[in-house]
Amino acid sequence: VPEFRKDPVTGRWVIIAAHRDARPNQFPQRPAVASTTACPFCAETMLTPPMVASYGAHESRPWQVCVVPNLYPILSDGDAFVVAPDATGLYETATSVGMHEVVIEAPTHMTSMSQLTAEQTRLMLAAYRDRMQVMRDTPAIVCAMPIKNVGPDAGASLAHSHSQIVGLPFVPPYVEAELAGAARFLKSHRECVFCSLIREELRADRRTVARTEDFLAWCPFASRFSLEVWIAPRDHQSRFETSDDLLLEKLGRLLQRILRKIESHPRITAYNYYFHSTPFDSDRDDHYHWHIEIIPRIAKAAGVEWGTGVHINSVTPEQAAIELRAQT
Amino acid sequence: VPEFRKDPVTGRWVIIAAHRDARPNQFPQRPAVASTTACPFCAETMLTPPMVASYGAHESRPWQVCVVPNLYPILSDGDAFVVAPDATGLYETATSVGMHEVVIEAPTHMTSMSQLTAEQTRLMLAAYRDRMQVMRDTPAIVCAMPIKNVGPDAGASLAHSHSQIVGLPFVPPYVEAELAGAARFLKSHRECVFCSLIREELRADRRTVARTEDFLAWCPFASRFSLEVWIAPRDHQSRFETSDDLLLEKLGRLLQRILRKIESHPRITAYNYYFHSTPFDSDRDDHYHWHIEIIPRIAKAAGVEWGTGVHINSVTPEQAAIELRAQT
Repeated sequence: VPEFRKDPVTGRWVIIAAHRDARPNQFPQRPAVASTTACPFCAETMLTPPMVASYGAHESRPWQVCVVPNLYPILSDGDAFVVAPDATGLYETATSVGMHEVVIEAPTHMTSMSQLTAEQTRLMLAAYRDRMQVMRDTPAIVCAMPIKNVGPDAGASLAHSHSQIVGLPFVPPYVEAELAGAARFLKSHRECVFCSLIREELRADRRTVARTEDFLAWCPFASRFSLEVWIAPRDHQSRFETSDDLLLEKLGRLLQRILRKIESHPRITAYNYYFHSTPFDSDRDDHYHWHIEIIPRIAKAAGVEWGTGVHINSVTPEQAAIELRAQT
Repeated sequence: VPEFRKDPVTGRWVIIAAHRDARPNQFPQRPAVASTTACPFCAETMLTPPMVASYGAHESRPWQVCVVPNLYPILSDGDAFVVAPDATGLYETATSVGMHEVVIEAPTHMTSMSQLTAEQTRLMLAAYRDRMQVMRDTPAIVCAMPIKNVGPDAGASLAHSHSQIVGLPFVPPYVEAELAGAARFLKSHRECVFCSLIREELRADRRTVARTEDFLAWCPFASRFSLEVWIAPRDHQSRFETSDDLLLEKLGRLLQRILRKIESHPRITAYNYYFHSTPFDSDRDDHYHWHIEIIPRIAKAAGVEWGTGVHINSVTPEQAAIELRAQT
């Protein structure tokens, strides 16, 4: 029997319907084959705007990880977020002010984060942190988010291992929903909701995928996506961009371990991850807790998801945790 | 330059970024090929639970359109929506009470709505209406929605032309967001926001795809999806399930005309549509206006969409309207 589960942060209901995995499918998936045109992210054939930052230079290589502006940005330079109503008063547009950068995670043609060295992973996280600090200091930007798309079914168009960082001029709806839920929880429970969830997940140990001294990786109770995993610091930390190098090194090791499990799971050919962190325009550090959400893209979001906002997930998070723990 | 546009109903921002269509893509799409196993929806090989309704019986055929319970339901029988917190007080589950039905739109193997007869289309809409009335009279259900998934990229798993109707025990988030926006608009403008939009779209005629005496089909100003089309009655009508046969016949003709344009557009291989209508637990008929949202599934929702809730659309709605008007 399917079950509704309520996300404890946002209050959003999800349908966990494991029996649906047995549905017949007349459209078997065929793996995508990447074309062999010159890669715009490889150092030797690079075709991007000039770098804004680079990391890991040494004798044999000018960089290990670098950051470039997105050649096809969704956000662009500007001083302020100006909203303009049209003559009818019905419609509003706004300047697309913000930043949209790409983190190239290796100078050679690596197509998966699993292949990166531990150093490249740490430098990638340092790039996320440093560029978020730059965005924090840019007046028009109030919220920044590192994002990764892997595989065509997750919206990736290039195979070379890379991420994006978007800096937005407003707090986007999904972050807003988590912030509002976290504020409600703090009021009623006098504690950060993420701290509470992490303590309970560690205690129950039914949905944990991996734990380290500093971090927990677990399948959230009301996962929207099959085999979804979240990673968060075990101690209360509200802003990712204040992380020090040592913490990033530890996070890099865990993130790579989890992504290796994700990438080697037989049903996962594509996934996204993104970082949620306290917006720059908030002076509160008590209720929101930065975390990474990793969402494998197995089933397609269909009419139910887009029409209602209610997700259907056909793998229970408890089963997901068992499968991912077993995966090396 | 990309542009933010605010959805006038919900207040949700969308990024219209037409230049992104020029991005290189290393993962060319390959068309899915349906397998040839026996179709569970063809009358001759039918494999479904017993019918709950059928339409269009005549001498040569027992039905033209029929309704069956979903063999893999996301919602099931029950008297009430009961929310149960767990022992920790952190997590809540609820009974999956509701209805989940399938409308089979032809007894023979039609794989697209374009192939249906005008009568089948009218009967399909009558089935939507009648089953919504049944759901309205079911105490645990407060909101019902006809939904269609076409093509594997839109989440369809079977090729035979069909739709689903879900009856939910709560008002889902996306309907709630539209209701809240419509209530705000009514308060400030003393008019239904949809009536206002329809009048303005008819006047400006920049985003209209088709108009009839009774309906308007247009590309909404802040479309989240490329080539998105909405259809709504031109007069204020809050509840789809109160439509009479004549109106459904007229709607069927327009819906089929629009879907023919969608299905013959060279970039569209998959789409969803769903009906939004006033929830059953609302006694207000003044501010919400039933409508159909048709969302072609060209680009994959990626990390930006799932991480922020902000959609990126690379075709302006004005350009979409030009293309769809030209399409026969």
